[in-house]
Amino acid sequence: MKVLIVGATGTIGRAVAAELGKSHEVIAAGRSSGAVRMDMTDAASIAAAFKKVGRVDAVVCTAGHVKFAPFAEMHGEDYEVGNRDKLMGQVNLVLIGRETVADGGSFTLTTGVLDSDPIRGGSSASLVNGAINAFVMAAAIEMPRGLRINAVSPGLIQESAEALAPYFPGFETVPAARAALAYARSVEGAQTGRVYRVP
Amino acid sequence: MKVLIVGATGTIGRAVAAELGKSHEVIAAGRSSGAVRMDMTDAASIAAAFKKVGRVDAVVCTAGHVKFAPFAEMHGEDYEVGNRDKLMGQVNLVLIGRETVADGGSFTLTTGVLDSDPIRGGSSASLVNGAINAFVMAAAIEMPRGLRINAVSPGLIQESAEALAPYFPGFETVPAARAALAYARSVEGAQTGRVYRVP
Repeated sequence: MKVLIVGATGTIGRAVAAELGKSHEVIAAGRSSGAVRMDMTDAASIAAAFKKVGRVDAVVCTAGHVKFAPFAEMHGEDYEVGNRDKLMGQVNLVLIGRETVADGGSFTLTTGVLDSDPIRGGSSASLVNGAINAFVMAAAIEMPRGLRINAVSPGLIQESAEALAPYFPGFETVPAARAALAYARSVEGAQTGRVYRVP
Repeated sequence: MKVLIVGATGTIGRAVAAELGKSHEVIAAGRSSGAVRMDMTDAASIAAAFKKVGRVDAVVCTAGHVKFAPFAEMHGEDYEVGNRDKLMGQVNLVLIGRETVADGGSFTLTTGVLDSDPIRGGSSASLVNGAINAFVMAAAIEMPRGLRINAVSPGLIQESAEALAPYFPGFETVPAARAALAYARSVEGAQTGRVYRVP
């Protein structure tokens, strides 16, 4: 398979590239690194990247930014950061990429444990993750040409835990390599409309 | 209690106003009707409405629009309709109203059955409902002054079913008066961070 990984140089993206790279051709895309440059917040940039890459069998997105701040300090524009980036960036990746993915191919998006297990400062992340999980479930039943779509919702990634642990009290960590297996399950499996939780 | 109902002249809003009106002072707000005019998509309009109404004990929102169309015809701007209206309209209602609600007061937002049971043409509704459910869960743990926040996720409302039934094959209907009980449960109860499903 030919697999486009958006955010391939991030902590999760590298692990997914390593896992899928064992048996597939991986094309790395990112805002400022990778073989293909793509700014997910810019529809024209997404379209240009797909045009450059051509037909692929799977698209994996491990990118997406949201603002973290105490709820008391969060205002409308702070939520718009995540809505533009991790939410509509991933949705637009599907909407714009759906013509380029081969029959029976797949999209695999990324949410995270805050979809169901909130922390202080994480209300935008929860909102965005809940939105993507529901979008994946709904888009799955209307996908053309046997295309599939799933999300992976990993817990606190072990490789990022040192910096983030104070915000995730008592959360167990997940090695990125273990989260990567869920992406492989989505890409190589036959399921659709699923949220793969890796707690 | 003094209860502000946004969308009080809609099908669900009328039933909630009737239920809560039995024992509370209800103030009706809406875009083009009600004692107070409020356009949820306009932060200035929300702020002006709260300034006019003053301190309230509970805010209920039964308003919110999303675009319904087959997934193949949905593009980024079509999702933005629901993101601006039902999603960020309700979020902004909380962000802007949180200073005006009395200690121990509550917000009750509206999602719907498409949060977990998708239909053709409903991918934006699913996305928005999933986002609000997760926002409510996350905002609840950071609310100041004992404020509470819940969502009601009703099924297909009986009074709207004649027009909508073709889009909801085999869905059982829910009388608006029964859905209204879930709003009363949120407003008069003590729970927070909950999604009350009324299937």
